[in-house]
Amino acid sequence: MKRLNIGMIGYGFMGRTHSNAFSQVNHFFDVPYRPVLKTVCARNAERAQAFASRWGYESIESDWRKVVESPDIDLIDIASPNDTHAEIAIAAAKAGKMVMCEKPLGRTAAEAEGMVKAVETAGVRNMVWYNYRRVPAVMLAKKLIEEGRLGRIFHYRAKFLQDWTISTELPQGGEGLWRLDVAVAGSGVTGDLLAHCIDTAMWLNGSITEVSAVTETFIKSRKHNLTGKVEPVGIDDASLFLARFNNGSLATFEATRYARGHKALYTLEINGEHASIAWDLHDLHRLQWFDHKDEGKLRGWRSLHITDREHPYMGHWWVPGLQIGYEHSFIHQAADFLIAAGEGKSASPTFREGLATDQVTDAVLASAKNRTWEKVK
Amino acid sequence: MKRLNIGMIGYGFMGRTHSNAFSQVNHFFDVPYRPVLKTVCARNAERAQAFASRWGYESIESDWRKVVESPDIDLIDIASPNDTHAEIAIAAAKAGKMVMCEKPLGRTAAEAEGMVKAVETAGVRNMVWYNYRRVPAVMLAKKLIEEGRLGRIFHYRAKFLQDWTISTELPQGGEGLWRLDVAVAGSGVTGDLLAHCIDTAMWLNGSITEVSAVTETFIKSRKHNLTGKVEPVGIDDASLFLARFNNGSLATFEATRYARGHKALYTLEINGEHASIAWDLHDLHRLQWFDHKDEGKLRGWRSLHITDREHPYMGHWWVPGLQIGYEHSFIHQAADFLIAAGEGKSASPTFREGLATDQVTDAVLASAKNRTWEKVK
Amino acid sequence: MKRLNIGMIGYGFMGRTHSNAFSQVNHFFDVPYRPVLKTVCARNAERAQAFASRWGYESIESDWRKVVESPDIDLIDIASPNDTHAEIAIAAAKAGKMVMCEKPLGRTAAEAEGMVKAVETAGVRNMVWYNYRRVPAVMLAKKLIEEGRLGRIFHYRAKFLQDWTISTELPQGGEGLWRLDVAVAGSGVTGDLLAHCIDTAMWLNGSITEVSAVTETFIKSRKHNLTGKVEPVGIDDASLFLARFNNGSLATFEATRYARGHKALYTLEINGEHASIAWDLHDLHRLQWFDHKDEGKLRGWRSLHITDREHPYMGHWWVPGLQIGYEHSFIHQAADFLIAAGEGKSASPTFREGLATDQVTDAVLASAKNRTWEKVK
Amino acid sequence: MKRLNIGMIGYGFMGRTHSNAFSQVNHFFDVPYRPVLKTVCARNAERAQAFASRWGYESIESDWRKVVESPDIDLIDIASPNDTHAEIAIAAAKAGKMVMCEKPLGRTAAEAEGMVKAVETAGVRNMVWYNYRRVPAVMLAKKLIEEGRLGRIFHYRAKFLQDWTISTELPQGGEGLWRLDVAVAGSGVTGDLLAHCIDTAMWLNGSITEVSAVTETFIKSRKHNLTGKVEPVGIDDASLFLARFNNGSLATFEATRYARGHKALYTLEINGEHASIAWDLHDLHRLQWFDHKDEGKLRGWRSLHITDREHPYMGHWWVPGLQIGYEHSFIHQAADFLIAAGEGKSASPTFREGLATDQVTDAVLASAKNRTWEKVK
Repeated sequence: MKRLNIGMIGYGFMGRTHSNAFSQVNHFFDVPYRPVLKTVCARNAERAQAFASRWGYESIESDWRKVVESPDIDLIDIASPNDTHAEIAIAAAKAGKMVMCEKPLGRTAAEAEGMVKAVETAGVRNMVWYNYRRVPAVMLAKKLIEEGRLGRIFHYRAKFLQDWTISTELPQGGEGLWRLDVAVAGSGVTGDLLAHCIDTAMWLNGSITEVSAVTETFIKSRKHNLTGKVEPVGIDDASLFLARFNNGSLATFEATRYARGHKALYTLEINGEHASIAWDLHDLHRLQWFDHKDEGKLRGWRSLHITDREHPYMGHWWVPGLQIGYEHSFIHQAADFLIAAGEGKSASPTFREGLATDQVTDAVLASAKNRTWEKVK
Repeated sequence: MKRLNIGMIGYGFMGRTHSNAFSQVNHFFDVPYRPVLKTVCARNAERAQAFASRWGYESIESDWRKVVESPDIDLIDIASPNDTHAEIAIAAAKAGKMVMCEKPLGRTAAEAEGMVKAVETAGVRNMVWYNYRRVPAVMLAKKLIEEGRLGRIFHYRAKFLQDWTISTELPQGGEGLWRLDVAVAGSGVTGDLLAHCIDTAMWLNGSITEVSAVTETFIKSRKHNLTGKVEPVGIDDASLFLARFNNGSLATFEATRYARGHKALYTLEINGEHASIAWDLHDLHRLQWFDHKDEGKLRGWRSLHITDREHPYMGHWWVPGLQIGYEHSFIHQAADFLIAAGEGKSASPTFREGLATDQVTDAVLASAKNRTWEKVK
Repeated sequence: MKRLNIGMIGYGFMGRTHSNAFSQVNHFFDVPYRPVLKTVCARNAERAQAFASRWGYESIESDWRKVVESPDIDLIDIASPNDTHAEIAIAAAKAGKMVMCEKPLGRTAAEAEGMVKAVETAGVRNMVWYNYRRVPAVMLAKKLIEEGRLGRIFHYRAKFLQDWTISTELPQGGEGLWRLDVAVAGSGVTGDLLAHCIDTAMWLNGSITEVSAVTETFIKSRKHNLTGKVEPVGIDDASLFLARFNNGSLATFEATRYARGHKALYTLEINGEHASIAWDLHDLHRLQWFDHKDEGKLRGWRSLHITDREHPYMGHWWVPGLQIGYEHSFIHQAADFLIAAGEGKSASPTFREGLATDQVTDAVLASAKNRTWEKVK
Repeated sequence: MKRLNIGMIGYGFMGRTHSNAFSQVNHFFDVPYRPVLKTVCARNAERAQAFASRWGYESIESDWRKVVESPDIDLIDIASPNDTHAEIAIAAAKAGKMVMCEKPLGRTAAEAEGMVKAVETAGVRNMVWYNYRRVPAVMLAKKLIEEGRLGRIFHYRAKFLQDWTISTELPQGGEGLWRLDVAVAGSGVTGDLLAHCIDTAMWLNGSITEVSAVTETFIKSRKHNLTGKVEPVGIDDASLFLARFNNGSLATFEATRYARGHKALYTLEINGEHASIAWDLHDLHRLQWFDHKDEGKLRGWRSLHITDREHPYMGHWWVPGLQIGYEHSFIHQAADFLIAAGEGKSASPTFREGLATDQVTDAVLASAKNRTWEKVK
C-alpha cells in the first residue's frame, strides 16, 4: 500500500475529526493508500505539539507555507478557520499537492472561484469535507433517489437547529469562537449550517434556481475576545429561505443557533410522487422511508436502522443492530477520497461542487439584504 | 330500527364508557338496534339521578333486581364492582335478558362458570367488555395474523404498567377505590390489568397451556375507607408470569401499578417467523409492523397511523390522519354486539371466552402462591 | 338548563364534527345550555333526511334563508362550502341569531370584513371553528406561553402536510371535492390548511407583520365534476412562506397536499429563550416540551401524554393514560362557546379573529403572486 | 507514557472491537499507558497475518501458550470462543500477565471459579468485557441510581432480542457460527445475550436472589459445519426468566434470536418510587428519564440525547448533538482499565463480578431444566 503523507493545517474540532479519519480508514476499508500523519501546522507550537503527540503526527510546523512547500507532503488538509481556506488551498494547488478543505470552501463564491481555478489549473485531486453525504443513511437516501423510487419530486425541506449561542454572555472571536466573528467566518449560520443543508440538498435533488431569504441577528453586540471590547455582531444568527429547485420542487431551508432544545438537529425530508425520505442528525443511524407502493392498509413510515451489511459502508463495521456515529462520516469520506485518488480522480464534493454551495449562500445573503427573490448564479 | 332498552347497573368509570357507547353508536354505525338509555341503577339515588340527567336515562332505580325483572328492559349491562357480576348476570340471564358484563367476568373461574352456565342455559346474548380488542390497530393485528402473514409464532409479550398506587397515603376500599379491596375486586392487577392482556393474547395467539408466576404486594397495609382502620392489603400490586401457548410460543406477561412514569401503558408484541407486530395503548392509533418479506435494505418497523378508511372501523369516523381515542373501542364493541344480536348471536368475547381468561388468572395466582408451573384448565 | 336550538347549514365532514360536538357536550361538560339539534339544511332533501335521522335533527330544510329566519332557531352553524359563508352569516346576524362559522371565515379578507361588521353591528355571539386551539395539548402550550416560561421568542414554524391530491385522476369540484375548486374554496391549501396554522400561530405568538411566499399548482388541469370537462386548476396545491412576527421572531410556514406519506400532519414548534414546545396532529394527545432550566445533564425533550386531570379539558374525560382524539377538539370548542354565551360573550376565535387570519392568507397569496414581501394589514 | 504490550488471542468480531479500543484510546483519553498491539494469535496463520496487517500488530503467533509465556507481553486479551477462556486465562494469570476476557467469563460458574481463583491468587489485574456498562447513557443511569434519585426500586426489566437464526438453513459450528454450537459456547442466548442483561442489571440494581426460567430450542437440528452432518441443536434459542432481586424488586428477563424485526435490541428499564429510567441499544446515545418530582402537568419521559460534555465520557468526544456508537463502549472500557491499572487496580467488571453473572446463568438453565424456582448461589 502506498503511503500518503498528510500535512494538516489546523488542530481544532475539524483537525480532530480529519485526523481520526486518517487514523481509522485502513482499519476498516481496503483503500490504495495508507495515510501517514506527517505534519500538523498551527501558530501555537505548544498546542501543535500536544495535538501531534496525541494523534501521532511526526512533526509540527507553525508556518503553513512550509508545509505546503515541503516535498515530504502529498496532501494538504485545510482544517483552519474560513478566512485561511483560499490562500492555503491556492498555494497547495500551485505546489501540486492534493487538497482537502473543510467547508465552506470560501467565505464567498468569489473566494471559492479562485480555489476552483487553482485546483483545476494544477490538476490536483481535491475535495470539500461536506461529511454528511457519507452518513450511511444519507447515502442510502441518495441511492433510493437514483433508483427512481421517488418519482417526480414535489418538496424538499431542511433545517439545522442549534441553541448554543442564546446567552448574551457568550463572547465572539478567537479560539473556539471564530465562527461568531464575521471577518473570519464570512457569515453566521448561512455559511456554517445552511451550507451543509444546501450541499446535501443539491446532491440529492439537483440545483437550486432561486431563493427568497430572511436573516436575523438576535443579539446585536458581544464582547470580542481579540479586542476585549463589546463590538457589533456581524454574523447572521438565523437564516431562513424559500427555494425553487431546477426540477420544479419547492423547498424551505432554515438554520439557527437560537432553537432552544436542539443541539445539532440537521433534518432533511424529500417528498416524491411515489415515496418520501426523512433523516435527522440526532439519530443519524436511522432513515425514515415511506413507500406509497406498499399495500394500502400497511402503508406507514418505516424506521430503517441502518446497520445492515447491505447498507452503504456498513459492511465495513460491526454487525446488524450496532450503530456507528458522527465521526464515521469522515472516515467514509476519507475512504472514498483515497479510492478515487487511486484512480486518479477527485472525490465528491469537489471544489467545483463546493463553489456551487457558496453560490447559493451568496444568493441567500443577497436576498435577505435586498428583500427580493434572487437567482442563483 | 328496533329499540333496545338498556338497564345499566353502575355509574362509575365503566358506567360512563358504556353509556357513551350506547349514545354514540347510531351516529356512526348502521346497526339493527337503537339503544335506549332506559334505567340506571345505583344504591345512591342522588348520584344515580345526576348520572341519569347527564346521559339521558329515562329513570333510575336503586335495586338491581327490579331492573333485571322489569319488562321494559331488554339488556342488562353490568358496570358495577367485580363482586356483583355473578349474581346480577345470573339473575339477568334467568330473566331472559341480554347480558353485558364489565371484565373480569368473575372474581374467579368458579364464579365465571356459574355465569357461563346461566347465559348458555337461558340462551341469551352475552358479551364481556374486553374493549381493547376493538381498538382499530388491535383489530388490524388480528386480521394480519388471520391472514397468515406472521407464519409460525415464536414469542408473545404483554405488559400493563401503571403508577397510580405508589403512595402509601392512598387508602383502599369504597367509592373509586374498590379495585384495591381484595374482597370486592377478587385480586389486584391480575384480574384488573393482566386480564386485559390475557384476553387479547388468547384472541390473537390461541390458548395458554401453562404459567409460572410471581406476585408482590409492595405496600402491605393501607387505611380502609369503609372501616376507617389500617388493614392488610390483600391484592397483588404486581403480577408477572412466563407462559407457554398451545402453538409452542413463549411469553412474558407483566402488570403492575408501581411502574413510575406509566399511566396505562398496555403494550403487546408478537414475533412470527415472517413478521412482527407491536402496539401500545399510550398511542393506540398506531400499529407497529415489521415484515421480513420487505426488500432487505428497506426492512424496518413501519409506524402505521390507523386512520384510513380501509382500517378496521375507521371508515365510520373522520378522514385519514385524524385519530380517535380510548372511548371509541367501546363504541365499536357496542356496534359489533348490536350487529351480532341482530343475527341472533352473541359477540366476542362471550362469557365463555371471559371464563377462559379467568382460568388463566386463577392459574397465575395459584402459581405465584405455590411457586410452581401451573397448567391452565 | 336552557335549550339552544341549532340550525345546521351543511351536512358534510364539518356538519358531522359539529353535530357530534353538540350531541356530546352535555355528557362531559357542565354548560348553561343544552344544544338541541333542531334543523339541518341542505339542498338535497334525501341526504338532509339521512343526516337528520342519523343525528336526531328534528326537521330538515332545503333553503337556508328559512332556517335563518325561523323563530325556532337560536344559533346558525355554517358548515357549508366557503362560498356560502358570508351570505349566510350576514343574514343570520341580521336575524339576530348567534353564528358559528366553519373556517376560513371568508374566501378573502374583504368577504370576512363584511361578516365581522354584520355580527358586531347586530351584537350577536359568534365564533369561527378553528378547532385545533382546543386540542388539550395545544391549549397547554398556550398556558405555558402565557405563564412566561419561554421568555423571548426566536422562532415559530408550522407545517400542514397532506398527500391526498397527488393523483392526476382526481377530479375537482362538486360533492366532497369543492376544496379543489377555486371558485368555491377561494384558494387551495392557503385557505384550507395554512389558515389553521396561522390561526394557532397568532393565538400563541401574536400578530404577523410581513410575509414572503411562494405557491405552486403541481397538477395544472383536472376534470371538473360539475362541467364534466378538463379545466385549469385554480387553487394552490402548495403554499410556503417566511414570516416576521410583531415580537421579532422569525417563522416558516408550509402547507401542501403533495407530501407523500403525510395524511394530516399539522406540526408546530416554538422556540423561546428558556423553553421550546412542539406538537403534531398525528399524535395530538402528546406535547413535546423542553425546558432549559432543567438540570444540565438531564435536559431533554419531554413527551407529555396529555391525559391527566390537570391537563386542559382532560378532567372531563377518562383517566390518565387514556387518550382522546380529533373530534374532541370540537366538543371543547362547543363547551367554551356555550359557557361564553352564558356570560353574554363570544368565544375565541371570534369573527374578528377569523378576519385577521384571512388578512394573512391574503398577504400570502399576494406575495406569491407579486414575488415580494407583503405587509399584513 | 508507559507502553503496555498486548497479546490478543482471537481475531474475530471481538478481536476487532478490542483492537479498535486499544488503537483509539490514546487519541481521546489521557491514560497512563499506551497500548501496543504486539502479537495477535490465531490457529490460521494467513488470517492472523491479515488481521495483524490491518490493525498494525507487530507479530503473529499460532500457539496461544507462546503468547502467554512471552516476556514481551504485558496483557493477555482473550477474544476467542468461550471454550478457550478458562484455560488461557488461568495460564495467563499464572504467567503474571494482566488478563482481559471476553464475556461470558466461563461457560459455567464452575469454569469461572477457576479463573477467578487464578487471577486472585496471582494478583493480576483483570476485567471482563461486559462493554455495555460503558455506554454513556448506561453509565449515566448508574450515576442517577447512585445519587438515590429513584428511591425504592420496584421493577427491573431487560430484553435482548435478535432475529438472525430464524432460518432452518443456517448451520451450526465453526468459523463465525460457534455461538450455535453448545460444546463451544456452553449455552445459547443465556450465556450470549442474557449474560449482558444480567451483568448490567446486577451492577445497577444489586444481586439477584432467585429465578424461574423457561428456555426453548425452536429449531431442533441443524447441519454442523465441522462434521458436515445434521446434528441436534444443543443451545437454547430463547431464554426467559422471572427474578427477585435482593432489594425486593421483581424482574422479567428475556433473550431470543427469534424476535423478527430486532437486530440487537437490548433494552432495560428500572422503575423506582420517584423516577424511572429506560435505555435501548438500537438508539444507544439516548436515555429515557422520568422524574415524578417534575411539576405535575409537565411530567413526561425525557429523551436525553447523551452527547453533552457533562455526560459520562462525552467530554472526550465531539460537540453536543453528535453521537457516538457501539465501538466506543469498548474504548471507554479500555480507558477505565488503563486508568485503574495505573493505580494498581482491576477495572469493573472484574473476573469475580463475571463469575456472579455465570452463577445467575447457571441458575437460569437449572430452573428451565427443573421447572422450579432456583436460588442463585
